[in-house]
Parts: sequence; C-alpha cells; structure tokens
Amino acid sequence: MIITDVIDKLSTKNKRIISRLISKVEEGNSESVEILKALFEKTGNAYRIGITGPPGAGKSTLTNQLTKLYRRQGKTVGIIAVDPTSPFTGGALLGDRVRMSEIGNDPGVFIRSMATRGSLGGLSKKSIDAADVLDAAGYDYIIFETVGVGQSELDIAQAADTTMVVLVPESGDSIQAMKAGLMEIADFFVLNKSDRPGADSAKLALETILMLRDHDAETWMPPIIQAVASENKAIDKIAEQIEKHKRFLQESGKFLENRKKNSAIRVKEIVEKALRDDVWSEERINQLQNKLSNIVKGEISPYKLAEEIVADYKNQ
Amino acid sequence: MIITDVIDKLSTKNKRIISRLISKVEEGNSESVEILKALFEKTGNAYRIGITGPPGAGKSTLTNQLTKLYRRQGKTVGIIAVDPTSPFTGGALLGDRVRMSEIGNDPGVFIRSMATRGSLGGLSKKSIDAADVLDAAGYDYIIFETVGVGQSELDIAQAADTTMVVLVPESGDSIQAMKAGLMEIADFFVLNKSDRPGADSAKLALETILMLRDHDAETWMPPIIQAVASENKAIDKIAEQIEKHKRFLQESGKFLENRKKNSAIRVKEIVEKALRDDVWSEERINQLQNKLSNIVKGEISPYKLAEEIVADYKNQ
Repeated sequence: MIITDVIDKLSTKNKRIISRLISKVEEGNSESVEILKALFEKTGNAYRIGITGPPGAGKSTLTNQLTKLYRRQGKTVGIIAVDPTSPFTGGALLGDRVRMSEIGNDPGVFIRSMATRGSLGGLSKKSIDAADVLDAAGYDYIIFETVGVGQSELDIAQAADTTMVVLVPESGDSIQAMKAGLMEIADFFVLNKSDRPGADSAKLALETILMLRDHDAETWMPPIIQAVASENKAIDKIAEQIEKHKRFLQESGKFLENRKKNSAIRVKEIVEKALRDDVWSEERINQLQNKLSNIVKGEISPYKLAEEIVADYKNQ
Repeated sequence: MIITDVIDKLSTKNKRIISRLISKVEEGNSESVEILKALFEKTGNAYRIGITGPPGAGKSTLTNQLTKLYRRQGKTVGIIAVDPTSPFTGGALLGDRVRMSEIGNDPGVFIRSMATRGSLGGLSKKSIDAADVLDAAGYDYIIFETVGVGQSELDIAQAADTTMVVLVPESGDSIQAMKAGLMEIADFFVLNKSDRPGADSAKLALETILMLRDHDAETWMPPIIQAVASENKAIDKIAEQIEKHKRFLQESGKFLENRKKNSAIRVKEIVEKALRDDVWSEERINQLQNKLSNIVKGEISPYKLAEEIVADYKNQ
C-alpha cells in the first residue's frame, strides 16, 4: 500500500478505504505510525463530541438522532462506538444493529465499533487514532460513544471537544453511586427518557449534586437537558447546546487549551508505549522469566530485578 | 531512619512503626524502593486473600467476621481496604468506621485504607507494596478488600492467592450486567445476605452463568457459598473454602505458578514506572510543552514529536 495515495483518496469518503486504513492503524505497528504521521496534516478540522453514560441510558439512540439531525444540516458524521462486544452489555450490540439499519447506509456517515475486551489500556489510543483517520477524511463531526464505566472509556470521552453525559430518571440513586469521574467530564447532561415518572425530581437531584461540587460558575456550569431520544424530542436542543459550548470554548481560548492538553496526553502515551515495546525485547522477557523462581523463593526482590533490567536497557 | 533497624522492629507488630513504614513506601521515591528491597527477604509467608464485589454487597462486614474468626484461631490479620474515600460510596467509609470500633484495637489486626481518588494507576502498585510490609511484619493473613469496579481494584484482587467475589441476591440482574472481569477472577463466590428473598434463584442464576462460561472443571470450579455476614452465618464455611482452595493451589503446583505470574506483572510495572520517571525529565516535559501549539496547528504530528523525545532519551 502506498500510503500517500491512500491518504489522498480518503477525502472521497470511500468506506472501504477508510475501514482498511483504520484497521491498519489499529495494528499499532510501524506502518500504523507512518500512516498516522502522514495523514496528520489533514486533521484538526472535525469537531469531536463525546457521548457517555451508564448502560441502558439510550446513548445509541441519541447518537443516531443527533447524526440524522446533522445529516439534515448537510454535515457528515463519523461515529466511534466503544464497547459493543462486552458479553454482559447486549444492549449496545442491539443499539449497533438498529444504528446500522437506520444510518449505516448513508454515504455521509461512517460507523466504527471498537471492542473493549482484550484490548485494555490500548483502547483510548486506538479510538483516538481512528478519529484521526475520520478527521483526515473530512467528516465534520466525530462522535465517540462510550459506556462510561472503565477508565479508558472515560479517557476517550474526555479527549472530545464537547462531552455530554446521558442519564435516565430511574438512575436517581445511580447518580449517587456514579463514579465521580462521570460527573467531572460532563460539559452538559442529557436526562434521557424524560417522559418517564421522576424526570423532574431526577433533574433536581442532579442540579443539587452539580451545585455541591466544586465548579467555576463564572466560566461554564453544565446545563441539564431533558430529552426523549427515541421520539426525537429535544435533539435540536442538544445540537444547540453543542454549538453553544463550542462557541464558549473558542471565545474563552479553552478550545486550543483543551486540544493542547489532549495532545500532551497523547504524546506521553505514545512515548511510553514506544519505551515499553523497546524494553521488553525477547531477551529481557527471558531474563525476567528465569528469575521468577528466585523472587518467589525470596532470593531477589522484584525491585532489585527491575533495577537490573532497567540498567541493562539503558546500557545497551 | 535507619532502614534495617526499623525492619527488624517490624516483627513486634508495633502499629505506629508499620504505619510509618507503609507511608514511606507509598511515597514511591528512592527511599521507598530501598525499604521494599530490604524487607523483601522477610516476605512470602502471609497468605493473601482478595475480597471484591459491587458496592453494598457487604464486603466490609464479611472482612470483619472473617478477621474475627482468624483471631479466634490465634492468627494475625492485615487488612488493606481500597476505595474508602470515593465521594459516591459512603457505605465503604461507614464500613470502615464499624470495622475500626470492632477490630481496630485488636493488637493482632492491622487495617490500612487506600484512597482511589487521585492515585489512578498507581493504586495496585501501592497496595501490593503495602502488603509486603504487612507480610514482612509477620501477619498470617493479608486481606485485600476492594470495590470491584475499576481495573486497578481488579488487579489488586487478582494479585491475591485466593479471591472471593461477594454478591447479594438482589444483584440478579447485576450478575448479567457485571463486567466480565469480576467473574473471571473469582476462586469462589459468596452470596451474602442470603436470608433475603431470591437467594436460591440468584444462586441458580450464578451457577448457570458459571456453567456457560469457559472453565476447566477438572481443575477448579468456583463454588458458591450462601452467607449472612452480619449474623456471622457461614463465615466458617468461607474460611474452610479458603483453606480448601489453598490446598488445591499447593497440591496442583498452581500456588507457585500464580505467585510467579504475579511477580512478573509486578516487575514489569516497576520497570515501566522507572522508565516513565526517567524519560519525563523537566527538560523533556518542556520540550513537549513547547511543541503543543505546533501539534494543534497541524504542523507536527504527535507521533513525530514522540519519536523525537524517544530518540533524545535513548541518545542521552
């Protein structure tokens, strides 16, 4: 594959080409790095939206409706859906199937599912790399849809320009139980399924929590939008809220500031992965394996062995 | 502090000395490493038990009862409780208070709480380092009590010799929703609060899930124990199950095999942390900060900058 040729063809939004390129990038080898370096100059134009929340909150439905709204505005959308293969979240898989039949054939929409299982730790890196491919292909919006349970899913949502957290009225107590992380990454909240009983008290409970936590009300206080995604209710308000937050970011200078912060995190991860790949040569893995008995027998401390391995690496 | 003197005093189980030493070790600096290296030869004798499960399953109560049983047998117990400070899991804090009043003053019991917040990623390392201090101090059992929600909490539970997952009858659907990780690390299950309605059907549901998943029934099939920790019911069965699993591990050779596996993970983490600390010198952090604008402007790819930083590190 001649990289530059393929990258030039990206702007045609040919789904087969994009799909192949994302797969290449996912492999995480030296070719992946060359591809990402080559397409980087074409990136930076897409607006990145994170949609996260607990399982069953209706994130897939909301993503579909928002995508359809953007399509009516003539905008193109790339979707990166994380966690569809977890064996205990069949709902996401179902959402994925509904999505494919509704918007999957639209030439202005590209959907990529990312599996959580078996790729712990590398997931946020893979998702952000895939977003670069979609960005270079010229999609106007990139939506990261993640189930907000693991750290890597939170990392992905946080890498977006605007992040919304989707909740449902019934999660009144789940708001309490919710891991603090989810509250802290929200630029705004969507209280989905708000035609159900308890929607107003859930909103009040959420507002109370937001008031109690540390916040900088002078800059940005996350609003709460009541919606019914399955009936397309308040999707326009959500889109407006995204634009409003985008303007806030741009006018306050936070847009570039956040992108710089995310770039720093990304470079750090790439550097650290490179060092890990580098230090764990076959030889050093053997060196480690051969000393494990000595550790278990109490003859050599894990810290002493680690020092030896680091010294060997640095003196090579 | 003269390290060898303090380490020699560890066996007196003086709580102030142990506490100070764990704090020193938690700092993660060069002195921490020297302490861990010096006390390592005294470790390896404690049996390590992981107790994990969703919030509200009664892990603290179970830990307390099991500890009291061990104390009646004349055994000493060190407890490492992870996640007491999360703002949305007040229950754990409460459990901690109950625990302190019940067993906190017993000279044969040492309790250490580890905060999740603000120490993401380093938590499993810190917990395992702290366990080494308790091991060197001569505690017979070390219990890691963790809320099984984050990856690092799972890592800690997995670092134990025997891990039990605690569930309650009401979590019938939470069994479905449970992240696969929790099922995979269980050496046995405790169905706590089994005096409540639905205890038997919950047991059946759990058995069905266990049958469906991949398992090596010839070696070890995780049993399910119904218990009521708050009334001290079936705590003896849990203790027996731990001994049974311990014998299985020792007779099958898996005891040393698992400890070797855990040691390998530990050495890897120490090596990688050392490289991270090493590469991110003030100078290279500045090099990164100064180029962030160029990344955001699309002038230099994160991958290119990462390559430069790695090259600079390796040529130093």
